[in-house]
Amino acid sequence: MTGRRAASLNRIKKLRKKTLGLNAQAYLATTPSNIHYLTADPALDYTPLALLISVDREPTLWVESMGSGQAERKLRNCHIETVRREMRVEDCLAAQGVGREKVFFDELTYSRHQALRRKLPHARLIHRPDIPRTMREIKDQNELRLVRRAVSIADAGMAAALEAVRSGVTEFEVAAEAEYAMRRRGSEGTAFSTIVASGARSAVPHANPTVKKLREGDAVVIDMGTRFQGYCSDLTRTTFVGRPTSQQAEVYRVVYEAQQIALRNICLPMDGRRADSLAREFIEGRGYGKYFIHGLGHGVGLDIHEAPILAAYSRDRLRDGNVITVEPGIYLPNRFGVRLEDTALVRGGRLVVLSRCEKRNLCSK
Amino acid sequence: MTGRRAASLNRIKKLRKKTLGLNAQAYLATTPSNIHYLTADPALDYTPLALLISVDREPTLWVESMGSGQAERKLRNCHIETVRREMRVEDCLAAQGVGREKVFFDELTYSRHQALRRKLPHARLIHRPDIPRTMREIKDQNELRLVRRAVSIADAGMAAALEAVRSGVTEFEVAAEAEYAMRRRGSEGTAFSTIVASGARSAVPHANPTVKKLREGDAVVIDMGTRFQGYCSDLTRTTFVGRPTSQQAEVYRVVYEAQQIALRNICLPMDGRRADSLAREFIEGRGYGKYFIHGLGHGVGLDIHEAPILAAYSRDRLRDGNVITVEPGIYLPNRFGVRLEDTALVRGGRLVVLSRCEKRNLCSK
Repeated sequence: MTGRRAASLNRIKKLRKKTLGLNAQAYLATTPSNIHYLTADPALDYTPLALLISVDREPTLWVESMGSGQAERKLRNCHIETVRREMRVEDCLAAQGVGREKVFFDELTYSRHQALRRKLPHARLIHRPDIPRTMREIKDQNELRLVRRAVSIADAGMAAALEAVRSGVTEFEVAAEAEYAMRRRGSEGTAFSTIVASGARSAVPHANPTVKKLREGDAVVIDMGTRFQGYCSDLTRTTFVGRPTSQQAEVYRVVYEAQQIALRNICLPMDGRRADSLAREFIEGRGYGKYFIHGLGHGVGLDIHEAPILAAYSRDRLRDGNVITVEPGIYLPNRFGVRLEDTALVRGGRLVVLSRCEKRNLCSK
Repeated sequence: MTGRRAASLNRIKKLRKKTLGLNAQAYLATTPSNIHYLTADPALDYTPLALLISVDREPTLWVESMGSGQAERKLRNCHIETVRREMRVEDCLAAQGVGREKVFFDELTYSRHQALRRKLPHARLIHRPDIPRTMREIKDQNELRLVRRAVSIADAGMAAALEAVRSGVTEFEVAAEAEYAMRRRGSEGTAFSTIVASGARSAVPHANPTVKKLREGDAVVIDMGTRFQGYCSDLTRTTFVGRPTSQQAEVYRVVYEAQQIALRNICLPMDGRRADSLAREFIEGRGYGKYFIHGLGHGVGLDIHEAPILAAYSRDRLRDGNVITVEPGIYLPNRFGVRLEDTALVRGGRLVVLSRCEKRNLCSK
C-alpha cells in the first residue's frame, strides 16, 4: 500500500469514528482542501467536487468527467462518481439510501443546501466544519515532508526576489523573478497572490505588485508562498533599496526583535492570543503598537490560512504538529512598512523554524 | 469623474433598476467577481467581502480592516464598512434598517444565510445570481480594453512557452518560462493553474505540469491565461517535440479545421448548443467524435468560466459584446491529445479573434 493510501485510510477512519461518536451516519466534504486531506491526493489532473464518507460504506467521490479516469486509477479506496454537466450530489445521496440519517457537512452553498433539503426532506443536515479543521491542525510526517518542500521552494524564490531588488526595476519584475525560480524548482503555482510593495505602498500590508519602479530609499515588502502537492508555504522579507534611513533601520530592528521574541518564547501550553501578545507587547513597548495592524500569524497547510490562529481574539490552543507563521509588522501610513514572516513547526513544545532565507543582513545592504 | 467610477455608477444603476423592477429593495453581492464588476475596481490592495446595493441608499461595501483606507480613497461612490475579525453583514443590514424587505443575493454559504435569517427573520432573502450574470455577459468598452490586454499578455507567454519546448526540458520549466514572460508584461498572476501536459499526459485535458521531461515524439498541450485588472485570458496551443507522426498531424489538422469552422461560422442569432455543434459535427464526421470530451467554449471575463457557455447542453444565446473561447480538442487515451483555443469577441454578429499567437506552423516544426 502506498504511503498516501495509508494516510487516506487513516484519516477517513478517524473522521468516521468522530462522526459515529456524535451519532451521525455520514460526513459530506465539499471544500477542496478537506477533500484533498481525506483522499491524501492533490488532484492535479482531475477535479473533485464532493466526498461522502458514510460510516458503513465505501467513500464516494464525485469528480468532473474530464479526468475521472485519473481519479479512478489513483483513489483505489473510493467509489468514483463521474459528474456530467452538473453535480447532483442530492440524487446520489438519495440513490445510496440516505434517508433519515444525520449527515454532517463542512460547508455548502445556500443553493446546494436547498437542493439537498428538497431531495432528502427527512435527513438532518448539520454544519460541522470543526471536525476536519481540528484534524488538519496536527500535521503528520507525510504532510510535514510536503510542507518542508514548499518552504524550501519559497526560500529559493525569495533569494531570487532579493537578488532582483535594485533601483529602476519594477515590482512586477521582482515578482517575475521570484515565481520563475519557484516554478523551476517544482512549484505548482503560488499559494496566494505574490506581494511586492515598495516605497509608500509597503505600508499597505497586502499590496499586489504594480509597474511602479523601485527607487533609492524605498522599503520593499515581499510576501510569497508556493504549493507543493497542495501544501502551502508563506514567507515575507523586507529589504531596502540602498541604505535604509535611521527610522527605517529602527523599525526593522523592532520587527526583527519582536519576531525573535515570539520564535524563542512560543511554547506549550499556550493559546493563539498569548502567542500574539509576545510580539505585540514588545512592539507596544517601543511605541509602535498602533501600527501593528494584523495578527501575529496563522496555521498553514492545505489552506494558506487555517487553524490555529495567532491573534488577540484567538482562543485556539497551540499543539505539537502545528505549522504556523510568525509575522509581526509595522506600517507607517504613507511612509513605509516592515514585515518579517517565517513558517515554523511546533515540536516538543517549542518552535522549529522551517524557512531558512536570510533576514539579519537585509537592513544593512 | 474617472472612467471607472462612471462604469461603476452605470452598472449599479442598471442593477438597481432590475432589482426594483422585480419588487425587491436591495441586492447583496458576495462573490468577488460580482463585487469587482459593480465597483469597477480590481481591489488589488484591499479585500472586499460583501456589497449591498439598496435601491434608495448609498451602496455599502464591507472590506477587511487591512486596506480599508485604500478602499475609501478609491471608491468614492460607496460607503465603506471596515470588518474587524469577522464579517457581520447581518448586523450591518439590521443597522441599516433592512427589516421586511425582499433582498436578492448572488450566493451565500449556508452558514451566512443562516446568520442572516436569524438576524432578519422578516426579510425575504431570494437567490438571484442571474441578474449580475446576465449583465456581465455583455462587455463594455472599458472591459474590452482590459480583456485585450490580458489576451496580449497571454500571447507573449505562449510565445515564450513554445520557444522553450524541446527534448529534455521539464513541463515545470515550460510553465516557468510562460509565467515569467507574462509577469514581466504586467500579469497580475495566472487566470488558472497553467497546464503543460506532454506525451500520454496530453490526453488528459486538465493536467498540471510535472517534473516529466519532454521527449522526442511528444505532443505538448499548453493552456494558460493571465489576469489584467482582474480580467482573464485563456489560450491553448498544442505543439510537438520534433516531427509529429502522421496520426498526430492528422489529429492536429482535424482540430485546427474544426476550430476554423467554428470561428468562421459562429454568428447571431445562435445559441451555445448550436455553436458547439459546428465544431462537433465536423470532428464526428472525421471519426473522432467520442474523443472530443468537453464543450466547445465558455465566456471569459472577471471569471475564467462565465456565461455564455458553448456546449451541447447550453441554451445560452450568444450576443454582441460576448467574449468567448473556442477550444475544440481530441484526446486519444494513453496516447496523446490536441487542443487549440482562442479568445474571441462577438461583434456585429460575427467573431473577431483576439488572440494572435501562431497556430498554423505548430504542427510542422
